[in-house]
Amino acid sequence: MAPFFMGAPSMTAFIHAIDPKIGKPIDPGIALSDEDDVDRLCAAAAAAFRLYRNTSLESRAVFLETIAAEIMETGDALIERVMAETGLLRTRVEGERARTCGQLRLFARVVRDGGFLDARIDPAQPDRQPLPRVDLRLRNIGTGPVAVFGASNFPLAFSVAGGDTASALAAGCPVIVKAHPAHPGTSEIVAAAIRAAITRCDLPEGVFGILFEKRTGLGAALVTDPRIKAVAFTGSRQGGLALVQAAAARPEPVPVYAEMSSINPVLLFPAALAGRGAAIGRSFATSLQTGAGQFCTNPGLVLGVDGPGLDEFIAGAVAGIEGATPQTMLTPGIHAAYDRGVGRFASHAGVRTLARGGEPSGPHEAQAALFETDLAGFLADGHLQDEVFGPSSLLVRVPDAGAFSDVLAHLEGQLTIALHIDEPDHAAVTTLLPVLEEKAGRILVNGFGTGVEVADAMVHGGPFPATSDSRTTSVGTLAIRRFLRPVCYQDLPQTLLAPALRDGNPLGISRMIDGKIAKH
Amino acid sequence: MAPFFMGAPSMTAFIHAIDPKIGKPIDPGIALSDEDDVDRLCAAAAAAFRLYRNTSLESRAVFLETIAAEIMETGDALIERVMAETGLLRTRVEGERARTCGQLRLFARVVRDGGFLDARIDPAQPDRQPLPRVDLRLRNIGTGPVAVFGASNFPLAFSVAGGDTASALAAGCPVIVKAHPAHPGTSEIVAAAIRAAITRCDLPEGVFGILFEKRTGLGAALVTDPRIKAVAFTGSRQGGLALVQAAAARPEPVPVYAEMSSINPVLLFPAALAGRGAAIGRSFATSLQTGAGQFCTNPGLVLGVDGPGLDEFIAGAVAGIEGATPQTMLTPGIHAAYDRGVGRFASHAGVRTLARGGEPSGPHEAQAALFETDLAGFLADGHLQDEVFGPSSLLVRVPDAGAFSDVLAHLEGQLTIALHIDEPDHAAVTTLLPVLEEKAGRILVNGFGTGVEVADAMVHGGPFPATSDSRTTSVGTLAIRRFLRPVCYQDLPQTLLAPALRDGNPLGISRMIDGKIAKH
Repeated sequence: MAPFFMGAPSMTAFIHAIDPKIGKPIDPGIALSDEDDVDRLCAAAAAAFRLYRNTSLESRAVFLETIAAEIMETGDALIERVMAETGLLRTRVEGERARTCGQLRLFARVVRDGGFLDARIDPAQPDRQPLPRVDLRLRNIGTGPVAVFGASNFPLAFSVAGGDTASALAAGCPVIVKAHPAHPGTSEIVAAAIRAAITRCDLPEGVFGILFEKRTGLGAALVTDPRIKAVAFTGSRQGGLALVQAAAARPEPVPVYAEMSSINPVLLFPAALAGRGAAIGRSFATSLQTGAGQFCTNPGLVLGVDGPGLDEFIAGAVAGIEGATPQTMLTPGIHAAYDRGVGRFASHAGVRTLARGGEPSGPHEAQAALFETDLAGFLADGHLQDEVFGPSSLLVRVPDAGAFSDVLAHLEGQLTIALHIDEPDHAAVTTLLPVLEEKAGRILVNGFGTGVEVADAMVHGGPFPATSDSRTTSVGTLAIRRFLRPVCYQDLPQTLLAPALRDGNPLGISRMIDGKIAKH
Repeated sequence: MAPFFMGAPSMTAFIHAIDPKIGKPIDPGIALSDEDDVDRLCAAAAAAFRLYRNTSLESRAVFLETIAAEIMETGDALIERVMAETGLLRTRVEGERARTCGQLRLFARVVRDGGFLDARIDPAQPDRQPLPRVDLRLRNIGTGPVAVFGASNFPLAFSVAGGDTASALAAGCPVIVKAHPAHPGTSEIVAAAIRAAITRCDLPEGVFGILFEKRTGLGAALVTDPRIKAVAFTGSRQGGLALVQAAAARPEPVPVYAEMSSINPVLLFPAALAGRGAAIGRSFATSLQTGAGQFCTNPGLVLGVDGPGLDEFIAGAVAGIEGATPQTMLTPGIHAAYDRGVGRFASHAGVRTLARGGEPSGPHEAQAALFETDLAGFLADGHLQDEVFGPSSLLVRVPDAGAFSDVLAHLEGQLTIALHIDEPDHAAVTTLLPVLEEKAGRILVNGFGTGVEVADAMVHGGPFPATSDSRTTSVGTLAIRRFLRPVCYQDLPQTLLAPALRDGNPLGISRMIDGKIAKH
């Protein structure tokens, strides 16, 4: 296990986050886990699974709400540790904590509602010809223990008690988190809050476990453990694909939900540009630089129809970038990768630098960047659509809205595509929408993808390589489906049926009866 | 392409089914496909996808119904070709045709209902604090062209126009079938019916394609073609796992829904045995031998609580097996594999033969078999749970109902588990149900798994190796989910939204609005 040590006993190695503002390690360190910990946590999760998945909807909902309450209880100790480990500002961290707790409470609502059980009843038809029909009833159950790999960029909302953990726990699955090495102290504080909730709700310890490591290796041991039945991951394309391969090569393959790589194209249509090019450019610069650009949905590519409106967009964007103060990135490694990515664009023969942000004054501050290339050059070099994680974007001029389709055909799958349009652009958008749907999980109008609402209708997913499984989302209530499987019960006596499937609907949930949704 | 040739032009190789009753090839042969055909069909499917997925619900439903009508139109030509290619009896083939057409019509109902779109609307909240909420709307769209690998044992219901094809077409996905080499003539007649429906419904040809080959190889080319976005397979464990690996190794991995291997344990509880052991034994013998035992859900393992009731069960089963006339198996290869499997059990030191069916009188008839082994022996040799495809089963005596749990823990995942119980057994079943749910896709009482109803509440799926993806089913209306992905639309003007998501609900479908199911 990895307790929140204040000292360093012999024989135990520790992980220390780096404070990116000053480049120095943060005390106290967190004890590193080893392969015995993987084995022990997987055994505990497998043992806890049956009891946990059979908890009542109400008690599981209360557990999720108790985790949220325990996280709030950690108060400033958590907020300050996040700030130290990530360089993020207090308002952002407090907002992210609110989002994380709101997400847990939303899944409590989902659990109480019971719709996720997808209860279905096809009553017997003893007189049917030529053969009688049996009584068939179906409900979803949890798939089993889930391995969660948190992201660096949302140390609360996409980490230890983030959306993957919340949706897996809501589904009735124990969770083992592989903590992100960028924020071990944050991870341990949140893990302690979850353990406190487990104690308060009188659940088995094995419902939640956490592992700490400095480099990859332990993650592979976790993903290939036969007791793990699904994997959720947010991070790099390379890291996600390695987990996909490892999980597919198991004697029993298991699903991997990896949210990986996306450059989130922004499409600027002529009427919108003509009417408000400069304003869109200023909003774009703000979106690009929010959180030092460290969002999965950061706008890394802008396709704009050429004309005076596009020049106004560029002027607005350039002003917003050149005038902005650089922000500290999450880790020295992310900052170094960002500088390398920006360097590749800056030194590319076909790329012109339109704007750079203000000079950094601290060690790991990101200097924002906006580049431009021409359409032929963009189509000729696939690497110009590689993701640069951070506040960098590439603008490509296209001759008219009809050209968007060709550029999109050339692009890989995306989390989001944003359209800036006014009424006269609608006809062109109508033509383009089928292409957009096949390329992205979310299509948005007159905004940017960087706000990801936690809601019933949200999709934070999309075709490969945005994710490894485009049938799913990692944000919003549909995320629970990733961790469920249907079971059919044929001709079971009433007393042997789960309450969700009994005649009279004792849980009062929505069910499909003979093909119709009913509450009886 | 593979037209239904009556002669053999030069340069074209043909595939001929073998009539298993006489062991002779059947004319006319069907032209074999090559890798150019894979490329051509994938290009056509990709080109047809956008138009096809955007057809109205009504026209897609009519298309499915037209396929059913066209299949019925083929009349006796189809029935007789199936009988010749499979050795199955006319009543069975006619029943399977009815099931296949009923399945297509059921998916037409699913399409018209529109619930599969999972339409969700989270209306904007412009006054929400601290930030306004955007307008979010979600619906499912088809994932793209689907490769379908039909099974040998249901030449209609799990083949060219079977459940995989019906659910993929219902989802809005073009289908390319790799025809099973055991029934090429049947496959071509059904393919022609689908093509006729495409013409009648004025759809693009690429909505459906079919490939014929003698051995594997072309299937790998199909699964690794980048235009294929999902794979459905029914067949052997080895074949399914090869497709899973091939699909995971693609630059863009795609899901494989493989329904593979299951021995469908039958659990005999003491009260049921005491009251009606012999009758259960006779029903078991019937289920075991139906369709020469060539069902995915065939009862290949019987666990019975020791006692006089079990002896009566055995007596009933033995009588039902020894008295039965052997039936012709589907192919010479399946028959040879069956004889090898039975031989492994018959010659196993720890296995005793309880009954063999009557002596075969034709070349590929299956001689049914019932074996017995003791509990320790069963637990000691994992190969005793290998599937033997055909009318063979293994009985294991257990000391009491409490022992079921240990045996189940030792078993792999299953499609079905059948319980034979009476009222006094209920307490033991209550204890066991959580174990059963984790092992099987369908749990049934006082019956056998060999009837698989096509219904809303059916699960024909289950934990590995029953399938490669336990979250899904290949039979029943939930099968459509395999070929759908959600897309979110943020702040789109009404005129740009699909009808399924517009205010006022012009399609009149069920939608989730602000977390509640509504029809408005």
